[in-house]
Amino acid sequence: MISFNMYFPVEIMFGAGKIEQMPAICKKFGSKVFAVFDPFLKGSDLASQILKGLKKIGLGYYEFYDVVPNPRHTVIDQGAALCVKQKCDLVMAIGGGSAIDTGKAIALVSTHGGSCWDYTVRHGEKFLKPETPCLPIITAPTTAGTGTEATHISVINNAELKLKAAIINPIIYPKVSIVDPELMISVPKHIAALTGIDTFAHAFESFIANGANEWSRMLALKSMQLFSESFVASVNDSTNITAKSKMALSCTLAGYAFTQSGLCLPHAIGQPVSALTDGPHGGTLAACIPQVIEFTLPHAEADFAVVAQILDPRLNINLPASQKAQKLPDIIKSLYKQTGVTVTYKDYGLREVDIPTVVDLCFSNYLQDAKGHPRAVTKEDVFRIVKRCL
Amino acid sequence: MISFNMYFPVEIMFGAGKIEQMPAICKKFGSKVFAVFDPFLKGSDLASQILKGLKKIGLGYYEFYDVVPNPRHTVIDQGAALCVKQKCDLVMAIGGGSAIDTGKAIALVSTHGGSCWDYTVRHGEKFLKPETPCLPIITAPTTAGTGTEATHISVINNAELKLKAAIINPIIYPKVSIVDPELMISVPKHIAALTGIDTFAHAFESFIANGANEWSRMLALKSMQLFSESFVASVNDSTNITAKSKMALSCTLAGYAFTQSGLCLPHAIGQPVSALTDGPHGGTLAACIPQVIEFTLPHAEADFAVVAQILDPRLNINLPASQKAQKLPDIIKSLYKQTGVTVTYKDYGLREVDIPTVVDLCFSNYLQDAKGHPRAVTKEDVFRIVKRCL
Repeated sequence: MISFNMYFPVEIMFGAGKIEQMPAICKKFGSKVFAVFDPFLKGSDLASQILKGLKKIGLGYYEFYDVVPNPRHTVIDQGAALCVKQKCDLVMAIGGGSAIDTGKAIALVSTHGGSCWDYTVRHGEKFLKPETPCLPIITAPTTAGTGTEATHISVINNAELKLKAAIINPIIYPKVSIVDPELMISVPKHIAALTGIDTFAHAFESFIANGANEWSRMLALKSMQLFSESFVASVNDSTNITAKSKMALSCTLAGYAFTQSGLCLPHAIGQPVSALTDGPHGGTLAACIPQVIEFTLPHAEADFAVVAQILDPRLNINLPASQKAQKLPDIIKSLYKQTGVTVTYKDYGLREVDIPTVVDLCFSNYLQDAKGHPRAVTKEDVFRIVKRCL
Repeated sequence: MISFNMYFPVEIMFGAGKIEQMPAICKKFGSKVFAVFDPFLKGSDLASQILKGLKKIGLGYYEFYDVVPNPRHTVIDQGAALCVKQKCDLVMAIGGGSAIDTGKAIALVSTHGGSCWDYTVRHGEKFLKPETPCLPIITAPTTAGTGTEATHISVINNAELKLKAAIINPIIYPKVSIVDPELMISVPKHIAALTGIDTFAHAFESFIANGANEWSRMLALKSMQLFSESFVASVNDSTNITAKSKMALSCTLAGYAFTQSGLCLPHAIGQPVSALTDGPHGGTLAACIPQVIEFTLPHAEADFAVVAQILDPRLNINLPASQKAQKLPDIIKSLYKQTGVTVTYKDYGLREVDIPTVVDLCFSNYLQDAKGHPRAVTKEDVFRIVKRCL
């Protein structure tokens, strides 16, 4: 029986050139902007045009470029202190997933105090989940990856504890996200490839997760269709604006899908590996997805068959589902090959002695993702899967 | 190139039994409820349980049952006066599209004054479009039809002027809509059939409309798939809760889709006919859809082929698109036949001498829908189409 709750308060402005409307959007929500930019945007035309635009319509701003991949809680807390000191009343975040997650967490800490780490959801520990509004958040992603422009999630890395955890709170839904594929043109090829795989992982995991429903599956399916039509082209030809556009929409839809359904085993494994090694999120997912599929067959055969047909439209439509499903790992590996993705966990410095720590984290901090998997999974299963990814 | 804005602030709580949460939801938004009920709910278990629930958690309420099909502006204005007098601070509307549209308009007039007719969009005339919030609106539909639980639209009938026009304003988006298919079980067969066709019309017109985009087409497609799987069963067996569930979701998705894309010719013709004759909205759409498709071929051949395949999955998948498209009118007529729908405009009392008035309204008040059609349409075209519907 169909049953779900659906809530998506983010206004999405999607399309090439839409970024020009950023200053006018900001003006709707405040008078002084805490402007979080990905560091690669420092001195860029984009940043200077937006800042000029803000000034022109009478908005103040403070520029913040101190964004790192896998955002650290200490950096975010410093940002929030600056935001308060500068008396900013809204946060604009432009950049990759790290910049946007940084901006979302700053908006929360600026109004609610403490450290951003206090608000992250951690297994078996107390955390803060305020319900009163934080500063309004406006985002514009420059990569098609995390989908954070469409979610109430901000992933934070505590380097001291070697832990990644997420704030998951509806108050950090962006008010408006401008998804402008032209901002994604300058992304280096290897980043476009790994962030694209992150997008696919969101849609794929959402599609098969135990928490999926008719609504989230519709979004995940459309996301995977767009991914299939555009991933290779968007990575290999960064000027292909049609492909970039489809990847950008694929990403937003995937973000929206997984906030409804939850994720499953690839994220439950990839996230702790990323926290332990500081390996990129997309890379630690890419390395484990084919192994997770092998492990999961035949428990999600019908769904895997659908995904295989989407990713390889030349697949004979009359093949039995079991055969289509068995082809899925190789179809995905072929996409990796076409975009130069060859990562293993060894590349990120993971050693066999680290595996038990990954397994422990998978069954503590990432238990919810692990439990969302369509095949029940034991610690021994995860150990074997991770070992195969080395 | 993909370009659209997407904004959907309604929280949808979808599923059998979800109506039990109505009092708790109301409590989030106010302390005294203006409770708009479809008259058929007077003295029902449903109404008494909800009112008991409101009382139990300390909310006041005022009951309002004065809802008519094709809601009149005078009735709504009287409701708003009562709502103000009773000092209600939120509106709950439970019933068919008429009850919900009545509730939405009452919420607006209660805070912004005047007559609801002043806020309706009319061609070439001034109308009010306030941006400050009106009373919060909570809905629960009892038919799968208009999709008004998901839209910022309230259709109002001015019987004096023999005109229908709509308030279209984001401030009347419901805060929460509880879509509980169990509420739809008691709907009489002929109403289930005609409201179901309204749902299909929303999805179908949205799918082919000039204003469609990737996002709205995804919603419309999923809506039509669910419609195809459930329409006949849900009409002919009102206890089939699986079918009712799919129709309910089809309806909500269709409402959401057409607010993004706009509608096209069937609504541009069906609405004036309904205003002139007081014929039911779904019926005036049903009678013209096959004729509109005949007129539109081959201008939307590829889309019609997709719809034909969805509505008749037994259709040979290898048929050329043109042949599939040509079959669409008969496929739709067959669905009508299976659900006992045999309406013509003559049945609603439309006479040949009335056709010029329909045509004039189509090109004035409903011009936006007419312009959204994928084949450009003249007054002569509309005359011919309406004549064939008599």
